Amino acid sequence: MDPERLEALLGAVQAGETSVAEALAALRTMPVDALAYARLDTHRALRTGFPEVVFCPGKTPEQVVGILARLREHHDRVLATRCEPAVADVVRAALPDLQWHPLPRLLTWGHVAPEPPGAGRVAVLAAGTADLAVAEEAAVTAEMAGVCVERVWDVGVAGLHRVLAARPQLDAADAVVVVAGMEGALASVVGGLTDRPVIAVPTSVGYGASFGGLAALLTMLNGCAAGVAVMNIDNGFGAGHLAARIARRAGGAA
Amino acid sequence: MDPERLEALLGAVQAGETSVAEALAALRTMPVDALAYARLDTHRALRTGFPEVVFCPGKTPEQVVGILARLREHHDRVLATRCEPAVADVVRAALPDLQWHPLPRLLTWGHVAPEPPGAGRVAVLAAGTADLAVAEEAAVTAEMAGVCVERVWDVGVAGLHRVLAARPQLDAADAVVVVAGMEGALASVVGGLTDRPVIAVPTSVGYGASFGGLAALLTMLNGCAAGVAVMNIDNGFGAGHLAARIARRAGGAA
Amino acid sequence: MDPERLEALLGAVQAGETSVAEALAALRTMPVDALAYARLDTHRALRTGFPEVVFCPGKTPEQVVGILARLREHHDRVLATRCEPAVADVVRAALPDLQWHPLPRLLTWGHVAPEPPGAGRVAVLAAGTADLAVAEEAAVTAEMAGVCVERVWDVGVAGLHRVLAARPQLDAADAVVVVAGMEGALASVVGGLTDRPVIAVPTSVGYGASFGGLAALLTMLNGCAAGVAVMNIDNGFGAGHLAARIARRAGGAA
Amino acid sequence: MDPERLEALLGAVQAGETSVAEALAALRTMPVDALAYARLDTHRALRTGFPEVVFCPGKTPEQVVGILARLREHHDRVLATRCEPAVADVVRAALPDLQWHPLPRLLTWGHVAPEPPGAGRVAVLAAGTADLAVAEEAAVTAEMAGVCVERVWDVGVAGLHRVLAARPQLDAADAVVVVAGMEGALASVVGGLTDRPVIAVPTSVGYGASFGGLAALLTMLNGCAAGVAVMNIDNGFGAGHLAARIARRAGGAA
Amino acid sequence: MDPERLEALLGAVQAGETSVAEALAALRTMPVDALAYARLDTHRALRTGFPEVVFCPGKTPEQVVGILARLREHHDRVLATRCEPAVADVVRAALPDLQWHPLPRLLTWGHVAPEPPGAGRVAVLAAGTADLAVAEEAAVTAEMAGVCVERVWDVGVAGLHRVLAARPQLDAADAVVVVAGMEGALASVVGGLTDRPVIAVPTSVGYGASFGGLAALLTMLNGCAAGVAVMNIDNGFGAGHLAARIARRAGGAA
Amino acid sequence: MDPERLEALLGAVQAGETSVAEALAALRTMPVDALAYARLDTHRALRTGFPEVVFCPGKTPEQVVGILARLREHHDRVLATRCEPAVADVVRAALPDLQWHPLPRLLTWGHVAPEPPGAGRVAVLAAGTADLAVAEEAAVTAEMAGVCVERVWDVGVAGLHRVLAARPQLDAADAVVVVAGMEGALASVVGGLTDRPVIAVPTSVGYGASFGGLAALLTMLNGCAAGVAVMNIDNGFGAGHLAARIARRAGGAA
Amino acid sequence: MDPERLEALLGAVQAGETSVAEALAALRTMPVDALAYARLDTHRALRTGFPEVVFCPGKTPEQVVGILARLREHHDRVLATRCEPAVADVVRAALPDLQWHPLPRLLTWGHVAPEPPGAGRVAVLAAGTADLAVAEEAAVTAEMAGVCVERVWDVGVAGLHRVLAARPQLDAADAVVVVAGMEGALASVVGGLTDRPVIAVPTSVGYGASFGGLAALLTMLNGCAAGVAVMNIDNGFGAGHLAARIARRAGGAA
Amino acid sequence: MDPERLEALLGAVQAGETSVAEALAALRTMPVDALAYARLDTHRALRTGFPEVVFCPGKTPEQVVGILARLREHHDRVLATRCEPAVADVVRAALPDLQWHPLPRLLTWGHVAPEPPGAGRVAVLAAGTADLAVAEEAAVTAEMAGVCVERVWDVGVAGLHRVLAARPQLDAADAVVVVAGMEGALASVVGGLTDRPVIAVPTSVGYGASFGGLAALLTMLNGCAAGVAVMNIDNGFGAGHLAARIARRAGGAA
Repeated sequence: MDPERLEALLGAVQAGETSVAEALAALRTMPVDALAYARLDTHRALRTGFPEVVFCPGKTPEQVVGILARLREHHDRVLATRCEPAVADVVRAALPDLQWHPLPRLLTWGHVAPEPPGAGRVAVLAAGTADLAVAEEAAVTAEMAGVCVERVWDVGVAGLHRVLAARPQLDAADAVVVVAGMEGALASVVGGLTDRPVIAVPTSVGYGASFGGLAALLTMLNGCAAGVAVMNIDNGFGAGHLAARIARRAGGAA
Repeated sequence: MDPERLEALLGAVQAGETSVAEALAALRTMPVDALAYARLDTHRALRTGFPEVVFCPGKTPEQVVGILARLREHHDRVLATRCEPAVADVVRAALPDLQWHPLPRLLTWGHVAPEPPGAGRVAVLAAGTADLAVAEEAAVTAEMAGVCVERVWDVGVAGLHRVLAARPQLDAADAVVVVAGMEGALASVVGGLTDRPVIAVPTSVGYGASFGGLAALLTMLNGCAAGVAVMNIDNGFGAGHLAARIARRAGGAA
Repeated sequence: MDPERLEALLGAVQAGETSVAEALAALRTMPVDALAYARLDTHRALRTGFPEVVFCPGKTPEQVVGILARLREHHDRVLATRCEPAVADVVRAALPDLQWHPLPRLLTWGHVAPEPPGAGRVAVLAAGTADLAVAEEAAVTAEMAGVCVERVWDVGVAGLHRVLAARPQLDAADAVVVVAGMEGALASVVGGLTDRPVIAVPTSVGYGASFGGLAALLTMLNGCAAGVAVMNIDNGFGAGHLAARIARRAGGAA
Repeated sequence: MDPERLEALLGAVQAGETSVAEALAALRTMPVDALAYARLDTHRALRTGFPEVVFCPGKTPEQVVGILARLREHHDRVLATRCEPAVADVVRAALPDLQWHPLPRLLTWGHVAPEPPGAGRVAVLAAGTADLAVAEEAAVTAEMAGVCVERVWDVGVAGLHRVLAARPQLDAADAVVVVAGMEGALASVVGGLTDRPVIAVPTSVGYGASFGGLAALLTMLNGCAAGVAVMNIDNGFGAGHLAARIARRAGGAA
Repeated sequence: MDPERLEALLGAVQAGETSVAEALAALRTMPVDALAYARLDTHRALRTGFPEVVFCPGKTPEQVVGILARLREHHDRVLATRCEPAVADVVRAALPDLQWHPLPRLLTWGHVAPEPPGAGRVAVLAAGTADLAVAEEAAVTAEMAGVCVERVWDVGVAGLHRVLAARPQLDAADAVVVVAGMEGALASVVGGLTDRPVIAVPTSVGYGASFGGLAALLTMLNGCAAGVAVMNIDNGFGAGHLAARIARRAGGAA
Repeated sequence: MDPERLEALLGAVQAGETSVAEALAALRTMPVDALAYARLDTHRALRTGFPEVVFCPGKTPEQVVGILARLREHHDRVLATRCEPAVADVVRAALPDLQWHPLPRLLTWGHVAPEPPGAGRVAVLAAGTADLAVAEEAAVTAEMAGVCVERVWDVGVAGLHRVLAARPQLDAADAVVVVAGMEGALASVVGGLTDRPVIAVPTSVGYGASFGGLAALLTMLNGCAAGVAVMNIDNGFGAGHLAARIARRAGGAA
Repeated sequence: MDPERLEALLGAVQAGETSVAEALAALRTMPVDALAYARLDTHRALRTGFPEVVFCPGKTPEQVVGILARLREHHDRVLATRCEPAVADVVRAALPDLQWHPLPRLLTWGHVAPEPPGAGRVAVLAAGTADLAVAEEAAVTAEMAGVCVERVWDVGVAGLHRVLAARPQLDAADAVVVVAGMEGALASVVGGLTDRPVIAVPTSVGYGASFGGLAALLTMLNGCAAGVAVMNIDNGFGAGHLAARIARRAGGAA
Repeated sequence: MDPERLEALLGAVQAGETSVAEALAALRTMPVDALAYARLDTHRALRTGFPEVVFCPGKTPEQVVGILARLREHHDRVLATRCEPAVADVVRAALPDLQWHPLPRLLTWGHVAPEPPGAGRVAVLAAGTADLAVAEEAAVTAEMAGVCVERVWDVGVAGLHRVLAARPQLDAADAVVVVAGMEGALASVVGGLTDRPVIAVPTSVGYGASFGGLAALLTMLNGCAAGVAVMNIDNGFGAGHLAARIARRAGGAA
């Protein structure tokens, strides 16, 4: 509606029915979001290529179905995160062509694993088996954003040789995601081994004084290696998204 | 400059030099803040009557002098908060007609204590002597915003009869500010005695497990009396400002 | 009983059976709450118009039924908060004319949505879908207190144009309630857009380093916009009640 | 065994078979607890009159039955705390003369409510309905320790007149227990009203920024009224036990 | 003034100038604290024997002098706590007969160490040398309240034999104060050795993960020995005051 | 593969097909972990005698079965920790010769309790019944590592004579593990009684201000007795493993 | 030395003095870091273009002089961070061609502000005046790493129009650094306005419940806008370094 | 005195003046610490070889002089920790043969660096330059306890090759001390490289979210490498002492 009001106003100016001063005054009192919205809409178009994302917690299965069905009409890729298995069952009964990723609890539509040439590259490292759900959330999210993902699992610092063995994958990446719970030291070690941007994700894996991931979070924030930034605890989606943003800009250069 | 660009665009539409479609496209790419600024400026004008405020920490005395001097040209009341005495000395040497409030460390220009009829009323209660600096900051701030302030000092819950004795002042107020450190229980007690909006300010007064005001803050947030909202620790300015907002709207009705 | 004792004492003074000095001594030893109660009772009467409220947690369904049934005899509006659905089922079986609000888990009796002219106005903004339960609790509570509520849902700061679009509703309100979880930044943004009193409610929506709402709580307490006060995490009831207190005083002026 | 070893050693000294120097050396190497135990045993005898107590969490129902059965043989009063209802069912099937207190989840044997003359007196105040489980735990514990308990329920600071009405009960007590959750302000208010020793018990009742009772705990620790000491969160047993210790010594004086 | 108003009212009733109903109505609107104050004043008189106390932080030396001078006119014992040496110098210059206790930073007037027969007894235990300032604050406070104090210094749990050696002093006391920093384990150990009421005071002595006394505070709150209650960190005054309350009631019995 | 590449490179040098300079350059670019792995493998061989360990949380029963079956082929002792009973049922159905320890939730293969002569010795002390699961985890882990374990249960500081009675076991040990929840004071007391290395394990046993074991953790970290180091909350496995490391080196000396 | 050992070993293989098997065995026992170091050295060479950095805290002025003098011999750009003014005075007396940046407390050598064409671009936004020291640290660090920096100061969310006005600078950047204290909401708002990678830096600017930057840190970690990662509090250097890493890879593509 | 009382009692038994039963009764009431003290004294003798230690904070220079002078009469090695330079100046003026270690702020008497053969060995690793004060405190403490110390400085995980280069020193040690601030990840890395007992010491080195060492402490407690125990923040003395305890037992075996 607001664009129409704006068009009408301009038409009146053109027709001489409204003076410039009157138009300026009208613009002053017109809700600023009319223009803001147009502007933002353009901005969103620039991001084409990133999937639309649905955050499932707090939504009923029916709501998730409805949103996903609508999004599929306008987008070529759709991603739903933190989807409980019971919710996923309902959604997939209604939308059978969605793909279910049980470990990271993701529902995807249009997911493919991009191939290297021409695409940016992200390496995702996970310290322990229990960190895989978060790491895979990051990996699939990045793939949905069109970048090639190298998965490097089970590289805890207690087995340092496995971390060292990941150097080729680090060197080939445009951005690195490090996922670790417990004490989260992997981020520091990786940060010291590579000059690529590192996105660290603490996980809530641990017990006792891990305080739900707080220990790993603080470790990563205080890391003495330069070039490491940190996401919220268990935020694999955010890390995958940010790594893809970085890799897509960098990858275009290759 | 941006309003000029806008005016020029509208002029071109009026002159037929620019089509409506072109103008719409131009508006889409014009920085949205051009309009936003105009809009916000109007909005600010609506707030006339509140003083302009300078937050001193992190500014040199010279910067404070410069800002205050400029503000005085366009406003009838100016307030500088959290001003160290040494900074105040420099400022007052340059701007001798400023008033210095040593306890709350405020510099004011144009401060008067409004008289009741026609003005909203705020009651400010302080639990202990050590809470007075914050309480007085709230009181002067509210007065600078044009409301009448009733100060009620030294009404800690350990001497409950003094709290009870403040009932007439509570009943006469449009909004109540409660300032208390230590355990901060005064907010709950006052909240149970009045039906006026209560703004609670925890202070950092205390020791040991007060943890710099955290104890009083949590007490006030968990208060079982309805009608109490909480400010940041030691934020007397914010409480005085909000109380004045409330009292001015309510007081206008009287 | 105590008023009777007081009346008897005064009668004895009047009859000359008790001297003034004896009466004074008797008053000194008479439980102070006899008078206090009388005084407080009067005070409560002044608050007529606010509903009686039952906080359900820790009470059996039968207790809730009993309390609500009794309250309905003396009040025209009754509100029960934080009512589990299973409890609500029992209560409504016994008291079928109660209204059940499943999202905010409220039971109401006598709930109507007041119409603007003559009533104060409260705008309730919610940042995300998951914040709606708390926001609706605030909204219904305010309506029960007799003010007109404007609901503005889904205005997270990540979609800033939607926040900007809420300016008209902010301008029309006597008080604003902002409900947000995650990082809670909406309170600061709204505080910068309006000069109305803002009551911010952090919610426990979030994960990881949100620490059950602590992150949003701290954000709101530290907000750099003046005029914002904060409630306990998830305390929609308290925010709605306080906003109604403010709006009723202000609204009477319109 | 150790007392026997000691007796044998002394017998050998008496018989001249062991020199004093040898006996001293033997005592040096004899486990010190042999004597310590004897000493401590005597000490325990001095405490006669306090019940033996079983802390149920972490014990199987069968273990609780076994311990209680054994204790009953040597004591006239037995108390089991924090007993889940399912455990209580098993225990009472085996030991039918035990008394079950469902609210505080206590099992007692030999429980009577002592009558005032000759017994110390404890007043137990509870702020809200949800605090009653902890308060009743304190009350029954104190009764099991032989003191007379005055229960004063539902005296939250939001209804200050009810607190004031409790003054006679405070004045009659040798020790006062205050149980409160939420913001816990009741402890400060009571501490300002009485000169009796006050034992404050924060409860985990609350939500949001109560952080499981932390808010009430900090409030009580920082209370500005003198004469108040604090127990662990929800530790009604400890408060009742300590209050009884105080009241028994004081009450003997009456 | 208020007592006069009350007396005048009763006089008017007596004279028939005011009806009983009018007097009742007048009492309803008379500030409740008029009576409350009288009542509380009486109550304070009951506490005779406890010193008047001045908390120095936040007061100028001149204010401290003024308050102490006034208090001395009406009381036989006066105590000022947390007095900085520089403040003490000023105060003693003006009031030379005050006694200065440099370790606990107390100023006293009328301080004597009561002798056992006829007085209650308090034992004060300090774990380490660095805890002595707080322990001595407790001890002098208790002496000012008229009880006999037994000081037991340097009884840390790392030297358990010294704790065991304090058993006679524990057995002779009516109440025990335990002062300990670092990990604060002394409170649990003492609580297991005595059946007297134990008041535990955590101190801020320590470093690193003592977090300003938090570690000792949590230790003492979680102690598994019954009969221990806890004060705020470094609150020697509060512990001494409460122990004296307990000992005076108990000691009167001896 | 990498060792083969290395061998091929050296063969080429030997054959004169590759110069030393070329070989050095090749080594520079060869993934460093090829050598690192070999090196680390040797290192692992040095640790023979310690069992292979499987941390069960986050693994399916089938995964646990698969890992354990494989480990048994190459090791004489295998240990699985934190195994839920339901998982243990599945595992034992597939691998019937595994031993199930229900209290510490361990599965072992090859577990024997080593006999003293020739083996190092570890004493494991537990403060309360509820700490036994963690203590037994430490004990069985140490036994799996080949050391003799002395279990000393139920030695809380509230019953100090039982702690003192454990002195002979402390004196006979090469390393001591202390397991305690609640306030965790046992570590300090034991640290003051022995000159053996003490490994303290806080447990999550407790309630209220124990904050899931934080209180015991801080107590143990701040203990004033020298010679005590601390493990994560509930980390019985880590304590048993470290104690065995110490005792094996020390015990070899006996 | 180690490279020499390696060369000698290869020479012996070449000369037939050492068999391939012997060489393999020797490599196994050779400290792995000999090769690791060579490898890492190469890796470091790849990072040419980033300055060498000296972290000043904990170093004497003489040590800083020594390190900087040595670094200048081998590098064209040197950066020293967190340098106290007094230290800077000593350093600049010895090394007069160093540049001193008083606000961010940096010493630089070889600092130039890169010009856009051919260089990546970073936008640095600061919310308030007090955040400038950290923001400028990020800006200079990024410039030292060869990228063009756009500074956007004073864009707090309380003045939303200024944030909106920064859209062109955001759109032109390859990476965005957001520096904010108090409640840190700027990161979320910027994250919602741009699709560039955003590095958020909380600052310790604030008071009360900002808890030294914790509030801003939590806000930024919980931000609901995708594409934002977080640095440690006040870590402007880290943010500038990481942003430059990202922009250099992306900028090469332009 | 107490040993005398005991000797007299035994003499009386020997002389037939006291019966065995009477002696048993007398022993029951004799303060248990008489024997405990004797016992503990013997125990202390067993620890010969460890230095006597004075913790300086909270003691006047004169007190430190007095204690050290007395200790030197009975011991061959004396250690004073956390000694401020100003205190050290006074002490050394009085006791000129004491050695001053300015970095760790230690005063020693009788300090020598033990030579390897025949002595246990401890490796002390420090992550950064700022951690050296704590690391050196551990090293000197261990040397004072008679073990040989290998210092390995500047081995942060950001330069992993230096950590790997420390493998020979790790392999040669009986116990390893790891000192690290910031994120403290070094402990995990070292724990994965060695099978020796590792004592980790977090330091308060860091800023922002290091929270005075809390981040490093949590990292070390949650380390996924087995065999690592943790000391309090900055507790170099404790780590050196415990490592020496371990190494002395183990080293005797070599």
